[in-house]
Amino acid sequence: MPSFREIEKDLGVLTQGVLNNERSALGKAITLIESNHEEHQQQAAQLLTAILPHTGKSIRIAITGAPGAGKSSFINVFGDFLIKTLKKKVAVLAIDPSSSIHGGSILGDKTRMTELSVAEQAFIRPSPSGGDLGGVASRTRESILLCEAAGYDVVFVETVGVGQSETVASQMVDIFMVVLQPGAGDELQGLKKGIVELADIILVNKADGNLEVEAEETMRFYKQALSYNHRDSGWEIPVLKVSSLKKSGFEEVWQTVGAYEQFALSTGSWQRRREEQNVNWFEAHIKQVALRIVAQSDALQKRKIDVLDKIRSGAIHPMKAAEELIAEVLRINPS
Amino acid sequence: MPSFREIEKDLGVLTQGVLNNERSALGKAITLIESNHEEHQQQAAQLLTAILPHTGKSIRIAITGAPGAGKSSFINVFGDFLIKTLKKKVAVLAIDPSSSIHGGSILGDKTRMTELSVAEQAFIRPSPSGGDLGGVASRTRESILLCEAAGYDVVFVETVGVGQSETVASQMVDIFMVVLQPGAGDELQGLKKGIVELADIILVNKADGNLEVEAEETMRFYKQALSYNHRDSGWEIPVLKVSSLKKSGFEEVWQTVGAYEQFALSTGSWQRRREEQNVNWFEAHIKQVALRIVAQSDALQKRKIDVLDKIRSGAIHPMKAAEELIAEVLRINPS
Repeated sequence: MPSFREIEKDLGVLTQGVLNNERSALGKAITLIESNHEEHQQQAAQLLTAILPHTGKSIRIAITGAPGAGKSSFINVFGDFLIKTLKKKVAVLAIDPSSSIHGGSILGDKTRMTELSVAEQAFIRPSPSGGDLGGVASRTRESILLCEAAGYDVVFVETVGVGQSETVASQMVDIFMVVLQPGAGDELQGLKKGIVELADIILVNKADGNLEVEAEETMRFYKQALSYNHRDSGWEIPVLKVSSLKKSGFEEVWQTVGAYEQFALSTGSWQRRREEQNVNWFEAHIKQVALRIVAQSDALQKRKIDVLDKIRSGAIHPMKAAEELIAEVLRINPS
Repeated sequence: MPSFREIEKDLGVLTQGVLNNERSALGKAITLIESNHEEHQQQAAQLLTAILPHTGKSIRIAITGAPGAGKSSFINVFGDFLIKTLKKKVAVLAIDPSSSIHGGSILGDKTRMTELSVAEQAFIRPSPSGGDLGGVASRTRESILLCEAAGYDVVFVETVGVGQSETVASQMVDIFMVVLQPGAGDELQGLKKGIVELADIILVNKADGNLEVEAEETMRFYKQALSYNHRDSGWEIPVLKVSSLKKSGFEEVWQTVGAYEQFALSTGSWQRRREEQNVNWFEAHIKQVALRIVAQSDALQKRKIDVLDKIRSGAIHPMKAAEELIAEVLRINPS
């Protein structure tokens, strides 16, 4: 954790640093957003307001898949391709509120992204630790904005496709990509049911060596399976094969991203998706702000202390105490 | 879903039904609690207030373990033992907000509990579907209360030990039991790191047939591993073996539950745990109630509609709109 004294000294310098794409400033800004301290939250709100006009210009891509499907390796090599071949700037964020059973938090170990972690044009940020999924999600959304303000062209949101975080991720990106490993069927993939149906683009990873033939079969299986699955939009979900080992297939992935963008822009679904996401974001942020105000209320804190002993001793039930406290303290302005 | 008309007709009848231990009334009461309708929520609050004096008398036991460890089978046979041999009444609830990758929601299929699902003295309730973990948890807490009011002596809370739900479960029970399968090491067990350290009692399941020897080894491994792990309380975590197939080991499990209860009562940790849980519950319920009030505010709904078009068109950023809206509508009563 960097010291916040520096941040506090001059929020303007930090804002300017983000806009100038200083990576250390971006890192500090995200740390500020992730802080639970009241003062930091106020500064974070100021910072976000200042950078808002400079946001919204990246392509936001969710990468989901089961543990072991090779998401991190894919992002590492694909990101490297985008930087070196296409001169893009690439940011990688993660949503993973729980430490996974499969070798710890995703992105917990930057060493899994050997190329990207040393690239000048890349920014990698592990998942914020702790907190509920809602809190983690809101911070990831805000981190996307900061990355955009810092000039990143492509923002990846990595998530493990076994829980609820991929649904949350799908609500903040333009394109939802699922990384599969050779082997057919959601269950065999270790994926939550229904995730493949959410995909805009499907990638079959590890199409190399012994697995090359199986990867081809997996592609055929999913192409066949998805042919029954018609999107209202008319988009036919492409199934592509890639190999992070052989560094092959990435050009086609990027072309397909471009094709999807063009398709979605022309049908208006790109715009509708962002609009819908803005509405969801608004709803979610109302809750965040309401909870923040309640948490920061001195009047409420004071009353809470008064009632805690009664709760401990069992003189009043916690639910009843909470209902009464909120009824006393919280007012909705009717005018 | 049962019709709510009946429920609405007479909340008093429902309350009395729960207190008289009518299973259908208990089922309806939990359905009422799980409803998101405003009217139902108000009725649920009334119902809970009415039954509160009759709660708190069960032993609350969390059963956690990796998918495939045999939690459901264990609860089925152990519950049957408690009912038939010890004349207990047994309730089973579940916390599992996400549909699992491993064969669907836990308790989704009552057929996995063949004995319990037909026992007169048992009540089984699958996990509430949908919603965030916080919401699911608050409903499970309230369902525990209802089961207690209906006279159940033992309430099991089943949870899959791979995410965050087991932490949530540990905050609402008296005893935290981890079910392991033969095979050593958290990773091999498919368990989240650190869960075993939370256990009050550890069970090695499937100690039968080919696995009997391995089960013994697993017991030794965990006994050894846990011998380095000293609890402040002085409780030495017992490692027991059970077989749902052979129906063996259950008497010892129940004796150990009793021993833990006696130990914890004598050291005061039983009471302290419930006190701490009441404080957590209070804090969590404050958030629940605050969010409910915000969600149900007509003034806020009206203003929301006004601002939605601006959000869709991008004229105002969703975060900014939410901040402004809450600032306008929400008041903290200072007096």
